[in-house]
Amino acid sequence: MRIGILGGTGPAGTSLAARLASIGYPAVIGSRSKYRAMEARDALAERWPALADSLQYGDNHAAADCDVVVIATPWDSAATTAQEHADALAGKVVISMANALVRVGHEFQPLVPPRGSVAAHVQAAIPRSRVVAAFHHLPATELGQIGEPIDSDVLICGDDPAAVRTVSDIVANIPGCRPLDAGELSNATAIEAFTAVLLQLNVRYKTRVAPKLTGIKQS
Amino acid sequence: MRIGILGGTGPAGTSLAARLASIGYPAVIGSRSKYRAMEARDALAERWPALADSLQYGDNHAAADCDVVVIATPWDSAATTAQEHADALAGKVVISMANALVRVGHEFQPLVPPRGSVAAHVQAAIPRSRVVAAFHHLPATELGQIGEPIDSDVLICGDDPAAVRTVSDIVANIPGCRPLDAGELSNATAIEAFTAVLLQLNVRYKTRVAPKLTGIKQS
Repeated sequence: MRIGILGGTGPAGTSLAARLASIGYPAVIGSRSKYRAMEARDALAERWPALADSLQYGDNHAAADCDVVVIATPWDSAATTAQEHADALAGKVVISMANALVRVGHEFQPLVPPRGSVAAHVQAAIPRSRVVAAFHHLPATELGQIGEPIDSDVLICGDDPAAVRTVSDIVANIPGCRPLDAGELSNATAIEAFTAVLLQLNVRYKTRVAPKLTGIKQS
Repeated sequence: MRIGILGGTGPAGTSLAARLASIGYPAVIGSRSKYRAMEARDALAERWPALADSLQYGDNHAAADCDVVVIATPWDSAATTAQEHADALAGKVVISMANALVRVGHEFQPLVPPRGSVAAHVQAAIPRSRVVAAFHHLPATELGQIGEPIDSDVLICGDDPAAVRTVSDIVANIPGCRPLDAGELSNATAIEAFTAVLLQLNVRYKTRVAPKLTGIKQS
């Protein structure tokens, strides 16, 4: 299963690409400019030569041609980027990971995008795709430190149960991560907004937090 | 320090009263009807006779006269109940713990109260008080099982740092609970909304979850 990453040259996109490649998923870093994607891919391959064969690059069209596609653009271009590739993404599992946040002074504030969440906005832009929200709470730096487990639960929500399972299977392969089924895509509103609280805690405690939920026995 | 609980006869209020009494805080269960408060208090005292001396009851006026006051009414009467006792609550630390949620089919959906959160709505209703949001994510049943630690972080936010510290000190005395400073009161919006996701997980996994955050070294 090849996983494409639209707008994948930022910290979240490159960290995810490296992590996915490290657990056996060939990843295609996409960008509006394939040269920027090449630069991002080569930087990763230089850092982790063993992953070079599993890390590819291309324009966003190349990323959208993959089996599963992640949208890793800034939140305010997630829906428009998805819509530009609506035909290529039709029928596919599309992962939305962006959070609509703004920094106000020392505080992070969640914004309310159209339809309540970035994920719901993306789903409305590509109605033929099966959008799943995931990866919102993972700190990008830790996500990119491949070889080190991430001690975190990953909340996953979406309206297509099979699509949620596909993403859960991917997450379950990341060492230390536990996928949790958080229900319908409407729950992305609260999941995305909660990221502002986590970033707030990062500032306050000079760390990078990740959530775990006690009380769930399933591993 | 006596802690009063406005509208304290429901599951959250009685569980909190018992827990507070068990860690050395005399608690006054308040209600519009002091007879309902008496009934709730006597049920607790029967279950835990050792706490009888630390559990009191009264009408909401009696609860509002305490040093620190918790608002444990249903979310849609939190602000009006606070406002009715604005004079008694002036200058005091007032804890808002309600979540504005509605069940839609099998899903829990967060509502957006006036000013974005129950806590901000309460603060606007009693501007002379120092409102702190806390206890949103603790499952009421576990909160009330005194003697058993609750393995959970408690996110606390408010605009008055001294008031946040007061609540943090209370939370730190609950076995297993770790208070975390989650910034300004505006963060209550995301904290309250996230409760819908936790309830969703409770339904999905037939359990009661509580959040922990990895990455923070402070105990």
